[in-house]
Amino acid sequence: MLIVQKYGGSSLKSANHLKNVARKVQRTVEQGHQVVVVVSAMGDNTDGLLDLAEDLAQTPSARELDQLLSTGETQSSALMAMTLEQAGIPAKSFSGRQAGILTSYDYGKARIEQVDPKELRNALAVGITPVVAGFQGVTRAGDVATLGRGGSDLTAIAIANALGADRCEIYSDVAGVYTADPRIIPSATPLDVLNYDEMLELASQGAQVLQTQAVEFAKGQQVPIYARSTFNDEPGTVIHQGESIEKPAVTAIALNRHIAKIGLLGVPDAPGVAALIFGELAQSGINVELIIQAMSHNQLNDIAFTIEEQDVKRAEPIVEDCLRKLGGSSVAVDTHVAKVSAIGSGMVGRPGVAARVFKALSSGDINIQMIGTSEIKISCIIDRQDAERAMTLIHEEFGLGQSAEMIED
Amino acid sequence: MLIVQKYGGSSLKSANHLKNVARKVQRTVEQGHQVVVVVSAMGDNTDGLLDLAEDLAQTPSARELDQLLSTGETQSSALMAMTLEQAGIPAKSFSGRQAGILTSYDYGKARIEQVDPKELRNALAVGITPVVAGFQGVTRAGDVATLGRGGSDLTAIAIANALGADRCEIYSDVAGVYTADPRIIPSATPLDVLNYDEMLELASQGAQVLQTQAVEFAKGQQVPIYARSTFNDEPGTVIHQGESIEKPAVTAIALNRHIAKIGLLGVPDAPGVAALIFGELAQSGINVELIIQAMSHNQLNDIAFTIEEQDVKRAEPIVEDCLRKLGGSSVAVDTHVAKVSAIGSGMVGRPGVAARVFKALSSGDINIQMIGTSEIKISCIIDRQDAERAMTLIHEEFGLGQSAEMIED
Repeated sequence: MLIVQKYGGSSLKSANHLKNVARKVQRTVEQGHQVVVVVSAMGDNTDGLLDLAEDLAQTPSARELDQLLSTGETQSSALMAMTLEQAGIPAKSFSGRQAGILTSYDYGKARIEQVDPKELRNALAVGITPVVAGFQGVTRAGDVATLGRGGSDLTAIAIANALGADRCEIYSDVAGVYTADPRIIPSATPLDVLNYDEMLELASQGAQVLQTQAVEFAKGQQVPIYARSTFNDEPGTVIHQGESIEKPAVTAIALNRHIAKIGLLGVPDAPGVAALIFGELAQSGINVELIIQAMSHNQLNDIAFTIEEQDVKRAEPIVEDCLRKLGGSSVAVDTHVAKVSAIGSGMVGRPGVAARVFKALSSGDINIQMIGTSEIKISCIIDRQDAERAMTLIHEEFGLGQSAEMIED
Repeated sequence: MLIVQKYGGSSLKSANHLKNVARKVQRTVEQGHQVVVVVSAMGDNTDGLLDLAEDLAQTPSARELDQLLSTGETQSSALMAMTLEQAGIPAKSFSGRQAGILTSYDYGKARIEQVDPKELRNALAVGITPVVAGFQGVTRAGDVATLGRGGSDLTAIAIANALGADRCEIYSDVAGVYTADPRIIPSATPLDVLNYDEMLELASQGAQVLQTQAVEFAKGQQVPIYARSTFNDEPGTVIHQGESIEKPAVTAIALNRHIAKIGLLGVPDAPGVAALIFGELAQSGINVELIIQAMSHNQLNDIAFTIEEQDVKRAEPIVEDCLRKLGGSSVAVDTHVAKVSAIGSGMVGRPGVAARVFKALSSGDINIQMIGTSEIKISCIIDRQDAERAMTLIHEEFGLGQSAEMIED
C-alpha cells in the first residue's frame, strides 16, 4: 500500500519523540508499504516564533509571518529525514515548494490550488521515503504561504489525494475523534467510524482533530483517513464514505473558542448594506460565518456576525469604515463568545433534535445569542464562560460517552 | 549610493539587537541611499540546530543539514523585514532562492555559481528594502545549499557584485580587521586599510572577519568592503584595490584552530600514489592545503597533509581505503594542530621575513611541523596548545599592535 502518515507537533516535541516517530515509520516500511511522511513543527516552536514576531512589530506583515513560521516545519522535515536515515531508511526532506504544493495568495490561510507530486513520485520510485514539511506551500509568485491552523493535515491529505494513496493516517496525541473534546468532557469516548460529512461539520465547528479543507480533499478522492495516537497502537477513528446506517441523532459535540462577534448597530435598512459590509470583508480574505440581521425601529437595522478571533484586528477598521459610509451609530466587538455545535448525520429527517439542544442549554440557564444550522449540525453562539457547561449538557442530553450498545437501547 | 549591509549573528542576538540594526538601516535609508540588507541567523541559533541534528544522527546527510540550517537565516530575514516595516521602512524578506542565488552541489560548502538579482532590483525600484537570508542558495535541482562558515559575507558581496553596488558594509561585533585576533592578542590594533590580496590571505588563514570566496568576489568587481562594528560608529577597516605603498613586512597574524593533520605512513614510493590519495579526496569535495612528502628507508614514503577539521570524519575512510589499495603501514590523524600565519604584501621582495617568523617561534621552543608559503604569507603548522603563544611571539617580533608611526620609525 501507499500510505501518507502525518505527525503533529505534540508527536515531535523532542529528539526522543522524533526517534519514536521514526520507529513507527520504519515499522510501516518494513511491512512492505511505501510511506510519505508529513510533519508539523516541533512542539510549540511556532508559538515561540510568533511571540518574537509580535515583540518586533505590532501587526507583522502576513507575507513575512508566513516566511517566518514555515521554517518550523522545514526544520522538522529535515530532522525527521536525518532520523530515518540513521535508522537505515533512505529519506529526503521536502519543503512545500519542493513537494509541488501551489497555494492561493491568502497568506496565513492559503488554500492549496494544485499539487504536482512529480518529485515525490521520483523519490518513491527509487526507494526513498519523502518527508514533507506540512502547513506550507508556495504561491505562483514564489512566495511562501501557510495553510492556517491544522494546515499540516491539509498537506497530508492533499498529497494522499494527488498520489492516489491507499490511506492517509493522521497521528496526534489523541486516539482518534471523540464524541467531544476529552480535555473538557471526561466521559467523551472515541468514535470507531465517521463519514466525511460528519467529520466536515466537526472540523468546521472547531474540533481540532482535522482541518476542514483537508476533509474536503479526502472526500473528493475518497481517501480513507485514519486518525490515531502516536503513542499507542489503538485503531483510532476511520473517516470514510460510510453510509448513514441507523445512527444516534448526535454523534459528537464540537467547541470553537476562537471566534468573535461583531455588531454594527443602527445602520440604515437599505438595499446593498449587507453587500457592502460582507463584500469588503471578503475582499480582505476574512471569513464570515453566522449572520443575524434584526430590524429595529426607525428603519434602522442591527447586523451581527461571527468571524475567527484572529481576524478581529484586520476586520475592525474595515467595519468602522463601512459604518462611516453607511452612517450607522456604532460598532460592537465581542471576543467573549464561543460556538458549541452538535453534529450527526443521524439528525437528517429526525425532527426535534434542535429543540433538545436548546432545552439542554436552557436547563443550564445558558443564553443563546445566535443560531446556525445545516442538515447535520446545530451551532449555538453563547458566552465563552458557559462553553464547557454547554458541551456537558448537550453531551448528556444525547447520551454520548456511553457505550454504543447503550445508545441503541 | 546603493549599499549592501550585512549583519552577523552577534548583531542579531535578541529582539533589541534586531531593533538596533533596523535603526542603522533606517538611518542609511533616510540619508537617501538604497540599501540591501543581508542577515545571518540570530545569535547561536545555528549551533542549537546542529546539536539537535547530532543528537538524531551520527553523520546527518549534508543535504538535510543544509535544509535544516538555512532556516535560521530565513527566520532572521523575515523578522528583520517586519522590524523595518514597523519602523516605517517598506521591506521584504528573500530566501537565497528568492534572491536568485544559484550554487554548486557541495552541500555545506557550496560556491555561488550565479546571482540573478532581478527580484532584488524589482523591489529596490519600488522603494522596498530587500532583506536577504545570508549563507544559502539553491542548486539547479532546487535543493537548498549552504555556503559554509562565514557564508553570509559571501552572500552580501556576491549580491553587491551582481547589483553593481557602490559598497558592501560587513557589520559584526568587532570594529574591523585587526593585526591579530584581539581576543587572543590584547595589544592587536585595527587596520585602517588593507588590499584585497592581503585580506584574501588573512581570510584563507582563518581570520574570521571575512570569508575567502567573499573577498575574491569583491576583488573581481572591485567592490570596496567596509568591515565595521554594529555597536559603534567607528570607521572600521576598508578593503579595496589599494597599491602596496611602503608597508611593514607583516601586516597581520591569523590563526586557524579548525584544521587536522593526516599522515599516511610507509606507502610505496611509486608514481601515482599522491594522485590516488588527493584525487579521491578531491572527488569527495575535501580541500587539502599543506602537503609534505618525506622519503624514508626501503623506498617507502610518509605523506602528511592538512584538511579542515570538520572533514576528518569523511576523509578517514577514504584515506584508510587508499592505504589498503597502496599497501602502506598505517594512518595517523592528528586533530591537535593549529595553523599560524603571518601575512603582508610588504614581504614581497624582502628576504628574511620567513627567518624572523621561525626565529620567533624557536625562541618560544615551539616546534614547526609543516610550513607553507605564498608571495605574501608564511604559515606554520604547530601544536594547538602553542597557538596563542606563537601568535604573540610573531606579533611582537614584527612590532604589530604599536601605532603606525612607531612601525615606520
